[in-house]
Amino acid sequence: MLQSHLFAKTLREAPKDDVSVNAELLIRGGFVDKLVAGVWTYLPLGWRVLENVNNIIREEMNAIGGVELHMPTLQPRDLWETTDRWKVEEAYKLQDRSKRDFCLGWTHEEAVTKIALSHISSYRDLPQYVYQIQTKFRDEPRAKSGVIRGREFLMKDLYSFNASREELDSFYEIAKSAYHKIFERVGLKAYCVEASGGAFTKEYSHEFQVVSEAGEDEIIYCKECAFARNKEIIGDVTQCPNCKKPLATSKSIEVGNIFKLGTKFSEAFGLSFTDEKGEKKPVVMGSYGIGPGRLVGTIVEVSHDDRGIIWPESVAPFRVHILALSASVQEEARKVMFDLEQKGVEVLFDDREGKTPGERFSDADLIGIPWRVVISDKTVKEGKIEVKKRTESDATLMDTASFIKLVC
Amino acid sequence: MLQSHLFAKTLREAPKDDVSVNAELLIRGGFVDKLVAGVWTYLPLGWRVLENVNNIIREEMNAIGGVELHMPTLQPRDLWETTDRWKVEEAYKLQDRSKRDFCLGWTHEEAVTKIALSHISSYRDLPQYVYQIQTKFRDEPRAKSGVIRGREFLMKDLYSFNASREELDSFYEIAKSAYHKIFERVGLKAYCVEASGGAFTKEYSHEFQVVSEAGEDEIIYCKECAFARNKEIIGDVTQCPNCKKPLATSKSIEVGNIFKLGTKFSEAFGLSFTDEKGEKKPVVMGSYGIGPGRLVGTIVEVSHDDRGIIWPESVAPFRVHILALSASVQEEARKVMFDLEQKGVEVLFDDREGKTPGERFSDADLIGIPWRVVISDKTVKEGKIEVKKRTESDATLMDTASFIKLVC
Repeated sequence: MLQSHLFAKTLREAPKDDVSVNAELLIRGGFVDKLVAGVWTYLPLGWRVLENVNNIIREEMNAIGGVELHMPTLQPRDLWETTDRWKVEEAYKLQDRSKRDFCLGWTHEEAVTKIALSHISSYRDLPQYVYQIQTKFRDEPRAKSGVIRGREFLMKDLYSFNASREELDSFYEIAKSAYHKIFERVGLKAYCVEASGGAFTKEYSHEFQVVSEAGEDEIIYCKECAFARNKEIIGDVTQCPNCKKPLATSKSIEVGNIFKLGTKFSEAFGLSFTDEKGEKKPVVMGSYGIGPGRLVGTIVEVSHDDRGIIWPESVAPFRVHILALSASVQEEARKVMFDLEQKGVEVLFDDREGKTPGERFSDADLIGIPWRVVISDKTVKEGKIEVKKRTESDATLMDTASFIKLVC
Repeated sequence: MLQSHLFAKTLREAPKDDVSVNAELLIRGGFVDKLVAGVWTYLPLGWRVLENVNNIIREEMNAIGGVELHMPTLQPRDLWETTDRWKVEEAYKLQDRSKRDFCLGWTHEEAVTKIALSHISSYRDLPQYVYQIQTKFRDEPRAKSGVIRGREFLMKDLYSFNASREELDSFYEIAKSAYHKIFERVGLKAYCVEASGGAFTKEYSHEFQVVSEAGEDEIIYCKECAFARNKEIIGDVTQCPNCKKPLATSKSIEVGNIFKLGTKFSEAFGLSFTDEKGEKKPVVMGSYGIGPGRLVGTIVEVSHDDRGIIWPESVAPFRVHILALSASVQEEARKVMFDLEQKGVEVLFDDREGKTPGERFSDADLIGIPWRVVISDKTVKEGKIEVKKRTESDATLMDTASFIKLVC
C-alpha cells in the first residue's frame, strides 16, 4: 500500500480541543478525524487497526459458539416501553415523517429478545449465542476521551439464551475466558472486576479494566495475582485477600462488561420455552459487550512513547513500513515491498514526494508500525536494508532474504 | 455450522404485510427479520450472504485503487447547510441534549469533502479514491419492497478526487467496469443506463438496472447488445440505435449509481489544490454507490422458484447443506461435514431434532444452498451420499471423495 493513497496526512500539531493522548496521537497520525465531539471517522489507517481488532473479537466469539448477525439502529418506542427503558436520557430520540417515535439503538437487549420470540420456543432451540459488531449511539454528557468515549461507536454485543441458570453460569465463565483471550491478543492486561448490574439489572456483572491514567474509573488491584475490585464498591482496602500483598490503586479504562440478565428481558417480552417435561419456563439470558474503538483508544493510551504510537503486531495497520530516503532508491525499495507482499506481509510504503529523511523518520515513529525498513543510497550500495523495530532504538543492516525470514 | 445454532427457524407462512417476493422468501427462510417497515435485522444466514456480497464489492473496489474508511452517521446541521441540503425531506433529523441539530447520514459527499480538506492541498495529494460500506438512513415514504428499499440500509459509497475533468472521466469508466464485474460476480445481469444527475448535480450520471417485475423503475433495453435507457428519459422508442433490433420494455431494479459531481462539492467546501504551476484549482469529484442489501434482495427476486431461493455459489450462505434423515446416520453425516470443512468447504448441517425428511427437503429448497447432500440408512448401506444441485431436479449417488473433488 502506498502512503500517498491513504488519505492520511500526518499533522505536526495536536488538536487543541481534545486533551486525551489517544485523540492526539490518532489524529496526528492520520488514523481518525473528528466530525464533532464523540463522533469520529476512521480514516484508512485507523480502519485497518479497527478491523484487526474486530477480527480478533470475531474469532474468539466464534470459538465459544457465537454466531454473527446484524440488528438495526432505528428502534420504535414500543420496543423500549416493554422494559420501561424509553425514558433513558442517553438515548438519541427522533420522529419519522409520520411522527412515529424512534430511538437510536444504544444497546440491543430489547431488539434481540423480540427476534428470539420467533426462534426459541422449545428446549430443542436452546442454547443460542448470537452477536454483532454494530454501531451504537449514546448522547453522552461529556465526550473528551478521544475514541474511548464516543457518542457514536462500534460495539460487539453478544447475547446468550439458556434453558437454566446453571447453563448461563457455565457460559458466563466461558465468555469471561474468551474476553481475557481477546484483551491478551490485542496487547492489553485487563483485570476482571465485580461490578453492580447498573440501573438495568439487579443481577451481578463484571467489568474488564485496564490500568491507565486516562481512565474514568478507579480500581484497587493486586500486582501479584488477578485480584481487582472497583474502588467505588470495595472502598479503601490495602491488602490483597488472596496473596496478602499490598494492593495498588489506579485509574482505569473499562474495556468490556458482561451481565447476567437472568429472566428480566425474557419475562418482559414473554420469551419462554417448553422443557423436556412439557413445562413452560422463561429463557435465561446474558449480555456481553466490548467496544472495538474503545480498545483501539486504550491500546494507544498504554502503548506509546513521546514520538508516537507503538502498535502491537496483532492490530498494527501494517507490519512493515518502508522508507526510501532518496529518489534514486525508489526502484529497490519497491522491489523489497513486492518481495514482502508476495510472502503475505502487509507493507506500507512511504512514497510521498518532497519529504526529508527526518520527516519520514518522525512520521514512521508517530504512525507506529512494528517494523521500519530504511532504504538509502548507502544501504543499496552494501546490498542491504536497514531494519528497526518500533520498540527498539538500534537498527540492523541485513539482506532482504534474512528480513523476510524474520517476519514470516 | 449446525442449523440449530443459527437463530433461523423457517416459517411455513409468508408474512402478510410485505408483498415482495424477496421479503417473503428471506423472512420464511430465516435470513432476515423485520423490526418495522424498512428496518431489518440480518439473521446469521442473511448476514453471511450480505458479507459475501460486501467482500466481492471490497475486492473490486480495492482492485481499482479504492481504500476503505468509515465515516459517521451523526452529522451536524452546518455540514449540510454548506451545500443547502439540510432541507432534504428524506433525512431523519434529531436534536441532542444540548439542542444541537443533527441528521442521520443518508449519503456522505459533505462529510468526505470536509475530511478531504485536511488531506488534499497539492497535486501531489491526488488522486484519492476512498470508500466505505456503512449504514445509511432515509425516511422513505414507502418501504414495501423488502430489503430492496430500506429506511436503514447498508451502502458502499466510493468518492473520487481528481486533479482534472479528464482524470475523472477516465476513472469514471474504470469504476463502470468494476461495477459490471461486481454484478456479474453476484449473478446479476445489470444494464448501465444514462440518467439525470437528480436534484443534486447537473452533471450526468449512470444507473445500473436489473430487469425484474419487482422493480420500481422502467427501462427500454436491447436483448442483443448492451443498449438500455431509462424510459422516463428516452420515451417510447422501439428500435435499438446500435443493432437495429426491436427494443424490450421492462420494470427494473436500480442496483447501483455513479455520478460525476464535478466541482459542486469541492467549491462549496473550498476544497482546492495547487497544481504543478502553483495555480489553485478546485478538486474534481465523483461518487459511486451500491446497496449490498439491495443486491441481496435483487438476487432473490431474479433467482428463485416456487420452492424457494436459488443462491449463486458466489454469495450463498454455505456451499453444501447436509441432511441426515434419521438418528442412526448422524455420525456418518457429521463425518462428511468434517471431511468437507477440512477442505475449506462451508457446510450447513441440518441437526434439528424432530423433523420429518419432507420438512428437511422443503426447508433446504427454501434456504437455497447450491449443493444438497442427503445421508440416510439407504445411502450409508451403499457407502454413498446422495448429491443434488439446487438448480437441478435429479440427485446422484456418489462416494464422499468424489463429491469433495466436485466442489473443491
